[in-house]
Amino acid sequence: MQTVAFLGMGVMGSAMAANLAQGGYRVYVWNRTPQRAAIKRATERGAIWCDSIAAAVHKAEVVFICVGEGADVEQVLFPHVVDHLSAGSVVVDCSTIGVPAAQKIGAELASYDLDFCDAPVSGGDIGAQRGTLTFMVGGKPETYERILPLLQMMGKNIFYCGAVGAGQAVKLCNQVLVSHYMMGICEAMTLAQKLHIPPALVVEVCGSGAAASWALSNLGMKVATGDFAPGFMIKHMLKDLHLVAEAKGDLHLPGTDLVTTLFEHVYHLAEGAEQGTQALVRFYGK
Amino acid sequence: MQTVAFLGMGVMGSAMAANLAQGGYRVYVWNRTPQRAAIKRATERGAIWCDSIAAAVHKAEVVFICVGEGADVEQVLFPHVVDHLSAGSVVVDCSTIGVPAAQKIGAELASYDLDFCDAPVSGGDIGAQRGTLTFMVGGKPETYERILPLLQMMGKNIFYCGAVGAGQAVKLCNQVLVSHYMMGICEAMTLAQKLHIPPALVVEVCGSGAAASWALSNLGMKVATGDFAPGFMIKHMLKDLHLVAEAKGDLHLPGTDLVTTLFEHVYHLAEGAEQGTQALVRFYGK
Repeated sequence: MQTVAFLGMGVMGSAMAANLAQGGYRVYVWNRTPQRAAIKRATERGAIWCDSIAAAVHKAEVVFICVGEGADVEQVLFPHVVDHLSAGSVVVDCSTIGVPAAQKIGAELASYDLDFCDAPVSGGDIGAQRGTLTFMVGGKPETYERILPLLQMMGKNIFYCGAVGAGQAVKLCNQVLVSHYMMGICEAMTLAQKLHIPPALVVEVCGSGAAASWALSNLGMKVATGDFAPGFMIKHMLKDLHLVAEAKGDLHLPGTDLVTTLFEHVYHLAEGAEQGTQALVRFYGK
Repeated sequence: MQTVAFLGMGVMGSAMAANLAQGGYRVYVWNRTPQRAAIKRATERGAIWCDSIAAAVHKAEVVFICVGEGADVEQVLFPHVVDHLSAGSVVVDCSTIGVPAAQKIGAELASYDLDFCDAPVSGGDIGAQRGTLTFMVGGKPETYERILPLLQMMGKNIFYCGAVGAGQAVKLCNQVLVSHYMMGICEAMTLAQKLHIPPALVVEVCGSGAAASWALSNLGMKVATGDFAPGFMIKHMLKDLHLVAEAKGDLHLPGTDLVTTLFEHVYHLAEGAEQGTQALVRFYGK
């Protein structure tokens, strides 16, 4: 039985670890805060709780990390993971941390004879629970082949994107797309309201043709009715858009710049940071 | 056999008239310029050419118009159509002319005892040829019921949107959506190129999740490879976005304002006006 460590028992990580444990792997799990409810959901399904990173990783051939930002990933890895992991093992980071951060971590791990893949995900908490996540993977092809059976326990759409950092790059392109879609949906719904068109009609009619999108079908009515419960939180979208700003360098991307300022506006409204991205419509006075 | 007139034998109108003729209607057709190749495609499939608007409409119970802008529609209707059409007949305008223009025409026709529906379409030349257009219809419900069998000969998705002008309103919301999607695709592809990610990977990976859209699947590779052959021309998108600017009044829609200025930029580049909307990527230096 292959032994795996999973560091970071948030909503995403705990569900992913549970799917690995149920898939027959021995999964040692750790979290900075030991009292989280999510941990129990993983251990109930077979994951094994460890009090320290050292205990979690010292027998692991593959270490998954799902902890949020690049600085958090580095704090977990250096020195805790690298001091206790056997040479030739693989570290897989599922956080969205940007291209340079992934490349830096990959290079540092290589100096310890450790392999690295960046593997950011999309599909949210529901995708994590159902094992239907999308993984965007950067790393050496042979490392990808090695971790692929594990990813298949947690995801449905798994894509090899290129060298370390390429998974991050594709994820950032994805976030540019979805943020523009959301801006378009918010503006179309705002216009529809002004013109006395029921929002359900916009979703139905426009969703049947050239304006069809996953976002319109799944978030269009939430925009129109003010249902701002988070699928993906505005604070996380803003973190990703700031990574885009870092990645684009001197490229002029005025749509991305604009939608970033609109999300920043809503982030600073009451409760805005933790609302779903569809709360962007609050910029328009909803 | 019901008798119909179709005014405007462009790429769209000729294909729509041909589908009506093949569906068993007697279809009289007219065009300002009599020498267009498209006319022959309609008459070969059973439509009957007329030298004047008067000859085309005088026996018609329903008159379709597909001529471009609001001013063109008015020039065709007044006095040519209204002088020769029997009271109780219906005029159906398939052009995208905006909400106030449709409402003005509807009110003027009512003073002649003529019914009116605005019925802008989406689906392009291919949809017109295959009879798979989307119709967004505004007018009285009983008028809609009367023309529905005719629309079903030309379209697959036919939506009743409300009173006269409501079809225009939904069409404008649709154009707000698709223009934002296009801006997002152009910026994502520009970022992908900078990050050395193959465009086909962006289409495949992002198209499998929350960034999935008809536009990404159908136009993403054209954006990336510089294939600017028109499905829907930039000059037509700009015409529609200017109608949005008219309709929105004092609403602040910064994304729509931005994408309008970007399309205007490309409109003024060599050949930009007649390229497909995916040529928006030329703003980004493609």
